[in-house]
Amino acid sequence: MLYCVRMDVQIPHDYPAERIEMLKAEEKARAIELQRAGVWRHLWRIAGAYANISIFDVASHDELHTLLSTLPLFPFMAIVVTPLARHPSAID
Amino acid sequence: MLYCVRMDVQIPHDYPAERIEMLKAEEKARAIELQRAGVWRHLWRIAGAYANISIFDVASHDELHTLLSTLPLFPFMAIVVTPLARHPSAID
Amino acid sequence: MLYCVRMDVQIPHDYPAERIEMLKAEEKARAIELQRAGVWRHLWRIAGAYANISIFDVASHDELHTLLSTLPLFPFMAIVVTPLARHPSAID
Amino acid sequence: MLYCVRMDVQIPHDYPAERIEMLKAEEKARAIELQRAGVWRHLWRIAGAYANISIFDVASHDELHTLLSTLPLFPFMAIVVTPLARHPSAID
Amino acid sequence: MLYCVRMDVQIPHDYPAERIEMLKAEEKARAIELQRAGVWRHLWRIAGAYANISIFDVASHDELHTLLSTLPLFPFMAIVVTPLARHPSAID
Amino acid sequence: MLYCVRMDVQIPHDYPAERIEMLKAEEKARAIELQRAGVWRHLWRIAGAYANISIFDVASHDELHTLLSTLPLFPFMAIVVTPLARHPSAID
Amino acid sequence: MLYCVRMDVQIPHDYPAERIEMLKAEEKARAIELQRAGVWRHLWRIAGAYANISIFDVASHDELHTLLSTLPLFPFMAIVVTPLARHPSAID
Amino acid sequence: MLYCVRMDVQIPHDYPAERIEMLKAEEKARAIELQRAGVWRHLWRIAGAYANISIFDVASHDELHTLLSTLPLFPFMAIVVTPLARHPSAID
Amino acid sequence: MLYCVRMDVQIPHDYPAERIEMLKAEEKARAIELQRAGVWRHLWRIAGAYANISIFDVASHDELHTLLSTLPLFPFMAIVVTPLARHPSAID
Amino acid sequence: MLYCVRMDVQIPHDYPAERIEMLKAEEKARAIELQRAGVWRHLWRIAGAYANISIFDVASHDELHTLLSTLPLFPFMAIVVTPLARHPSAID
Repeated sequence: MLYCVRMDVQIPHDYPAERIEMLKAEEKARAIELQRAGVWRHLWRIAGAYANISIFDVASHDELHTLLSTLPLFPFMAIVVTPLARHPSAID
Repeated sequence: MLYCVRMDVQIPHDYPAERIEMLKAEEKARAIELQRAGVWRHLWRIAGAYANISIFDVASHDELHTLLSTLPLFPFMAIVVTPLARHPSAID
Repeated sequence: MLYCVRMDVQIPHDYPAERIEMLKAEEKARAIELQRAGVWRHLWRIAGAYANISIFDVASHDELHTLLSTLPLFPFMAIVVTPLARHPSAID
Repeated sequence: MLYCVRMDVQIPHDYPAERIEMLKAEEKARAIELQRAGVWRHLWRIAGAYANISIFDVASHDELHTLLSTLPLFPFMAIVVTPLARHPSAID
Repeated sequence: MLYCVRMDVQIPHDYPAERIEMLKAEEKARAIELQRAGVWRHLWRIAGAYANISIFDVASHDELHTLLSTLPLFPFMAIVVTPLARHPSAID
Repeated sequence: MLYCVRMDVQIPHDYPAERIEMLKAEEKARAIELQRAGVWRHLWRIAGAYANISIFDVASHDELHTLLSTLPLFPFMAIVVTPLARHPSAID
Repeated sequence: MLYCVRMDVQIPHDYPAERIEMLKAEEKARAIELQRAGVWRHLWRIAGAYANISIFDVASHDELHTLLSTLPLFPFMAIVVTPLARHPSAID
Repeated sequence: MLYCVRMDVQIPHDYPAERIEMLKAEEKARAIELQRAGVWRHLWRIAGAYANISIFDVASHDELHTLLSTLPLFPFMAIVVTPLARHPSAID
Repeated sequence: MLYCVRMDVQIPHDYPAERIEMLKAEEKARAIELQRAGVWRHLWRIAGAYANISIFDVASHDELHTLLSTLPLFPFMAIVVTPLARHPSAID
Repeated sequence: MLYCVRMDVQIPHDYPAERIEMLKAEEKARAIELQRAGVWRHLWRIAGAYANISIFDVASHDELHTLLSTLPLFPFMAIVVTPLARHPSAID
C-alpha cells in the first residue's frame, strides 16, 4: 500500500553540531536500508529546500508510523502523509 | 528531469454531462499515451479526492507546461508543480 | 485499518431541489448500509455545520477510495483523510 | 456529550530530557486512567506525526477543559476541539 | 452551556430577491424568538460585515446543532463554533 | 462601545517559573478589577486552550488599547480585536 | 475615532452590465459625499487590484457599520476593519 | 522603478467562447505592445498554471495600476504586486 | 508616491531588557524625525497589538526600503508593503 | 532553464554577531560570483523585507539545488521555487 510522504527538516541553529552530523549520518544509513528493503520506494529532494518527497510501500498505517517515527531526524521534521490509491488511468 | 505534480479536479455542476464524459475519456486516453511514452512516470489517485499525485520526467519546464496545459481537463484543474532533485541518500 | 475522514458538504443553491432530495436519501441509505457492514465505524455530525467526522475501517486505500468516491454526495464534498495508527497509550 | 479533539505535541529540543521522559510517563498513565473511566473514548495516533485524534465523552465544556488543561503535556500541545452532535444517518 | 458562534452570510447574487426577503424576515423572527427563550444569549453585528458573533446557551451539542441548522439562512452561512468553559478569573 | 477580543497565551518554556506565577497572579487581579469596573464585560475560557474570548465595553479604541497593552501577560498574547455593532435583530 | 478599512470588490461576470454601471456611479457619488462630510478621511486604490484602503473617522462602530453596509457595492465587497488607536510616537 | 507582478487567470466556464478568444487576442496584442514600449520588462509563464510572473518598469504606482487595470483579462485575474528595490549584492 | 506599510513587532523574551529600551527610544526618535520630514505621513497603532499601520510618501522603492530597513526595530518586525495609487473617487 | 526563486532570510537574534557578518560577506561574494557566471540572472530586494526575488538560469533541478543549498545563509532561508516556462506572448 502506497503513501506519499513529504518531510521538511528544520534543525534549531543552537543544536550541537556534532550531534547533528551523527543524526544525519544515521538518517542516511536508515534511508538506504529502508530503500533496499523495498519499503521506501522513492526518495526525492525538493529543489531549493531541506525537504523530500517520498513514496512508501508498507502493509499498514502502523508500519508506516513505526518507520517514520523512528527516523533519527523525526523530532525535527514536519511530515505530511497522503494515502495513495490506484488511479483508473494508471498503466502500471 | 523530474517534477512532482498534484492535480485537483473541480468540474462545475452545471457543465453539460456529455461534454464531461467526453473530456474524461480524452483525458484518460492522453494519460495512458503519456505514460507509455515514459514522460508521465507515475500516476496515483489521492484516496478520497478527485485528485492525483504524479511524477513527470521531461526535458524542460516548457515541455512540462505544454503537456499539462493541453490536458483535456486542464481548465478544471488546480495544479501544484514541485521540481525534484536527486536526493543524496537515494539509491536508485 | 482505520481512517479519520472529514466530509464538508456544499450543494450549489441552483441545483434542482428534487435531485438533491434524491441524492440525500441515497446517501443516507448508503451510510446506513456501510455502517451495518462494519466499514463505516463511526459517523458524527459536526455541530453547526453541514459536515461530518467519520471513522472508516477498511482493508486498503483502494477500498477507502472506492467507498468515498461512490457516495451519492461525493461531487459536492470536500474530504480530508487522516490515516490512524495504534496509539501506544490506547487500551482498546 | 462527544468532542473530537486533535492534539499536536511539540517539545522544545532544549527541554531537559529526564523531565520529558517523566512527563511522557505521567501523560501515558493519565491517558490510560481516563480511558478506563470512560471519558477518553477513543485515542488514535495520526500516522507519521507526534499527534493524536481523540474522542472525549464528558458532561460539559468545563469538564473537558479541566481534563485537557491538566494533561502533563498540555503546555506543549496545540489542541483543536470540535463538538460532535448526533448524525441523522448514524445507526449506533 | 455556552458556545461562541460566528456566522458569515453569503447569498448568491442570482438568488430570487423575493425569496431572500422572505428568508431574512423568517431569520429575524426566529432570532428574536430564540433570544426571548434565553438560548440565544447575545447577538452582535460584526462592524463592516454581513456576519454576527453570538453566544448560545443550550443543554447539548445536539440542541445547538438543531437550532443552527434550522435557521432560515443556514444554507448560506459559514459557521464557526467555539465551546466556552468557565474562566478562572471570571467574576460572574 | 463593544469589542470582541480573543487572546491566546503562549509563554516560552524557558521563562522563569516564579515570574510566570507572578504575572499570572497580576493578570488575574487586573482581570477581576476590570470586570468590576464594567469595562471587561464577559470573560470566557476557550475549552481546551490557554485562550479566552472576551467582550470589552469601552469609550474608544485608545481606551481599549491602553487596557489590553498593559495586561501583565500582554507580551505573551496573540490578540484579535473585532468591533461589534448593534445587530438589527438583537432584542437587548 | 479612526478605522482602517480594506475593501476588495468582486462583481460576478454574469451580473447585468447596466446595473453594474449604475452601482459604480452611485458608489462614486456616495464616496465623494462621505469624503466631503469628513467621515471617509482617506481613500486609496491598491495598485493592481480592484480594491481600496480607506481611513474612516466616525463616532462609533454602529456608525461605521451603517456607512459601510449601505455602500452600493457592499454586497460584492470583502471588507476587513482594523480599529486604529493613537500611536505614542505619532506627532499629529 | 521595478515591480514583480504575478497574475493568475481564471475564466468562468460559462463565459461566451468567442468573447474569451477576443479578449485573449487583445491581451496578447497589449502585452506585446507594452513589452516593446519597455514597461513590461519580463513575462514568464508559470509552468503548469494559467498564470505569469512579470517584471514591470514604470514611473509610479499610478502608471502601474493604469497598465494592469486596463488589461483585457484584468476582470478575470488575481494579481499580486511586489515592489522591488535595488539589492546591495546585485551587479547590474 | 504612497505606500501603506503594516509593521508587527515581536521581540524575543530573552533579549536584554536595556537594549530593548534603547532600541525603542531610538525607534521613537527616528519615527518622529521621519514624520517631521514628511516621508512618514501617518502612523497609527493597531488597537490591541504591538503593531502599526503607516503611510509613507517617498520618491522610490529604494528610498522606502532604506527607510524601513534602517529602523532600529527592523530585525524584529514583520512588514507588509502595499503600493497605493490614486483612487478615481478620491477628492483630495 | 529559468526559475523564479524567493528567499526570505530570518537570522535568530542570539546567533553570534561576528559569524553573521562573516556569513553575509560570504553570501554577497557568492551572489556576485554566480551573477557573473550568468546563472543568477536577476537579484532584486523586496522593498521593506530581508528577502529577495531572483531569477536563476541553470541546466537542471540538481544544479539549482546545489547552488541554493550551498549558499552561506541557506540554513536561515525560507525558499520558494517556481519553474518558469516561455510565455506565448513574450517577445524576447
